[in-house]
Amino acid sequence: MATHPAHPVPHLTTALTGPLHQLETVIIERQALIESWFRCQWHTTPAPFYASVDLRNAGFKIAPVDTNLFPAGFNNLNPAFEALCIQAIQLAVEKSGGPTTDRIVIVPESHTRNLYYLESVRVLRDLIDKAGFEVRIGSLIPDLEGPMSIELNSGEKLELVPLSREENAVRAGEFVPDLVLLNNDLSAGLPAILEGLEQPVVPPLALGWSTRLKSVHFGYYQQVAGEFAERLDIDPWLIDPLFRNCGEIDFMKREGTACMQINVDALLRQIQRKYDEYGVDSKPFVIIKADKGTYGMGVMTAHSAEDVLELNRKERTRMATTKEGQKITKVIIQEGVYTHETWGDANTVAEPVVYMIGNNVVGGFYRVHDKRATFENLNAPGMRFERLAFDECCITPDKHQSPDAHPNRFYTYGVIARLALLAAAREKANL
Amino acid sequence: MATHPAHPVPHLTTALTGPLHQLETVIIERQALIESWFRCQWHTTPAPFYASVDLRNAGFKIAPVDTNLFPAGFNNLNPAFEALCIQAIQLAVEKSGGPTTDRIVIVPESHTRNLYYLESVRVLRDLIDKAGFEVRIGSLIPDLEGPMSIELNSGEKLELVPLSREENAVRAGEFVPDLVLLNNDLSAGLPAILEGLEQPVVPPLALGWSTRLKSVHFGYYQQVAGEFAERLDIDPWLIDPLFRNCGEIDFMKREGTACMQINVDALLRQIQRKYDEYGVDSKPFVIIKADKGTYGMGVMTAHSAEDVLELNRKERTRMATTKEGQKITKVIIQEGVYTHETWGDANTVAEPVVYMIGNNVVGGFYRVHDKRATFENLNAPGMRFERLAFDECCITPDKHQSPDAHPNRFYTYGVIARLALLAAAREKANL
Repeated sequence: MATHPAHPVPHLTTALTGPLHQLETVIIERQALIESWFRCQWHTTPAPFYASVDLRNAGFKIAPVDTNLFPAGFNNLNPAFEALCIQAIQLAVEKSGGPTTDRIVIVPESHTRNLYYLESVRVLRDLIDKAGFEVRIGSLIPDLEGPMSIELNSGEKLELVPLSREENAVRAGEFVPDLVLLNNDLSAGLPAILEGLEQPVVPPLALGWSTRLKSVHFGYYQQVAGEFAERLDIDPWLIDPLFRNCGEIDFMKREGTACMQINVDALLRQIQRKYDEYGVDSKPFVIIKADKGTYGMGVMTAHSAEDVLELNRKERTRMATTKEGQKITKVIIQEGVYTHETWGDANTVAEPVVYMIGNNVVGGFYRVHDKRATFENLNAPGMRFERLAFDECCITPDKHQSPDAHPNRFYTYGVIARLALLAAAREKANL
Repeated sequence: MATHPAHPVPHLTTALTGPLHQLETVIIERQALIESWFRCQWHTTPAPFYASVDLRNAGFKIAPVDTNLFPAGFNNLNPAFEALCIQAIQLAVEKSGGPTTDRIVIVPESHTRNLYYLESVRVLRDLIDKAGFEVRIGSLIPDLEGPMSIELNSGEKLELVPLSREENAVRAGEFVPDLVLLNNDLSAGLPAILEGLEQPVVPPLALGWSTRLKSVHFGYYQQVAGEFAERLDIDPWLIDPLFRNCGEIDFMKREGTACMQINVDALLRQIQRKYDEYGVDSKPFVIIKADKGTYGMGVMTAHSAEDVLELNRKERTRMATTKEGQKITKVIIQEGVYTHETWGDANTVAEPVVYMIGNNVVGGFYRVHDKRATFENLNAPGMRFERLAFDECCITPDKHQSPDAHPNRFYTYGVIARLALLAAAREKANL
């Protein structure tokens, strides 16, 4: 895991903290009610095995902008919370596979050169090992003929074992797992070797990007945020990014542009109305991204409907395919949420990413970058950012302190992240 | 919680670490097998709500000597593991009362002057509060007419609310709990107000000292240790204190002395045979203690059968009653396990105490004392000791390090403590 940073709490540099302060106050005051509500929700709709949620804190609202059900980045978590992860893994495995689950195979992404990603797989493997399970890394790399050992920058080693199949059971070499843990978002499609297995696969294949749509996720999120907001008697917009979606786009052929323009325009007006209501003196913007697939190529920012028209050939090419090279035919147009958390000097932007195992929050980290504008997407191609582990694990609210004190701000992050997790749980339940 | 000590790991100062090293090696090597076994055990026999287990590390064996099902001392745990406790409490409450449990009343011991104990109740209350439950302290103090606020040495306040009953529901003032959490060992007897409640009471009343017997617990422990030892192919004596018991003793009338003498003598011979087998060059001793009730008055050390005969009137008086003033009529005679962990200078003795919530180990502390001999009982009347929070939470074994490295030694402590917890789980299942 990452080295523990000295001062891992960015500052909120905005005067527009009226509604946020109110939100944080309500969340701390009604903590018992919130946890009670979550307990019932998880009982009805169990959480996926794990998730990371990217949040944006605009000072006047806090909202999730991406929910990753095959999280990487375990190497960025605070090592102080290792035991918390171990305990949460024990619980999540028992819930997924029952008490007789002893052997787990992790199926990671197939790229072998991203040592940074593989370091995360290594940390995940070690956590599962420490939690008391036998664990192997089973690779989907097509031409892998035998075990491959990769030396990581940390000096640790990771052994990838090719997956094979015998009837309806998958195995990694001689190792026959009781549970298959996917850490591969299936952007490249559904691997036949994992279909129709007798062993449980978690999260289920259908939560991969070969079938999942962001617009469906944010549809469920809207529902969840609405119920939560009603319970706390707050405006759901304070925790929910508005969105619209367009199907059947062809960026290269400029097909579907009219639909995008209409939706971008309508969404910008909707945001402006909320900005007016709360006296927010900023320019609304939207993020347009592929409805399927991880962040990557197909992400753009628009401040007006014209921005969609004015795409040059290079930009259209960039929007036309995902990073896996698949054609983008559907997009989601999401309210852009300003990042008003800064780190060190005022030009350094910080975005919180919260991690959950089962329904337990186990910490997170900040993505920090000092070159981009507050409205841009920090998780974009070619960009570099630092990661700063949270000093707090997000589950230790302290009513003796002010609602925006560190343990309470992180608790709020944990609550909003769990709302996104609950949306994913409903996606899973309705597969 | 306690301030985090700088170097909280006592040293093992003994040459007799052959069998221990072997035990620690086996435990680290077979960690996955051990955890698999525990998972099945907890599935069959759920753990009590919480427990603390006093261990003794003799260098050649590690064994539990007391299992407390109504633990105090939460204020001595390492604050770094607060989140681990919170997560474990969420799970333990759900297992005890189901997902709709929102309101919890803690029923503590009735002494109001032991501010040290009340500090533990305060920490337990805060942990439950942070875990997202409404919590009150419901007092059994007979003459308490309304809420009483007690200011603790930490500056925190604790409000005791008198318990009342309406038909089969108990309440603390207007607060009607969904779950009653006992933190009272019932040495003073079964309180009628808690009998036959419609609300679940955890741990169950029958696990209090008004009915429980140490000899029954250690009988189950013997069974558990035997099964565990067989699975790991080790001698169960390395983790199990031998014991015998005597019923119907009257120390004042010198009745039952013959039975005690016979058992003390037989037990000392049994220990000597094991010492011979392992080449332990120490003098065997036994601990005689009340079979019911917490540690207190009725505890003595004997190195020979004659020690029982030679009790003077003062010693007999001390042995005749528990600290609650109840007559001792049954005793357990347990193999004395030397304490070979020392702290700082070689005359300072350290005994580990491990804490569990549900079946999750959440840390512990060392009782440290620099005046007593290695064969005496550190938890004895009038004695003073320091408490040093564990630096490790006992669930993060590290196979890259030697079997006796800190995370691994603490992991071993957590394993042995869980064996005692499993014995308590079997007691509970067979009530």
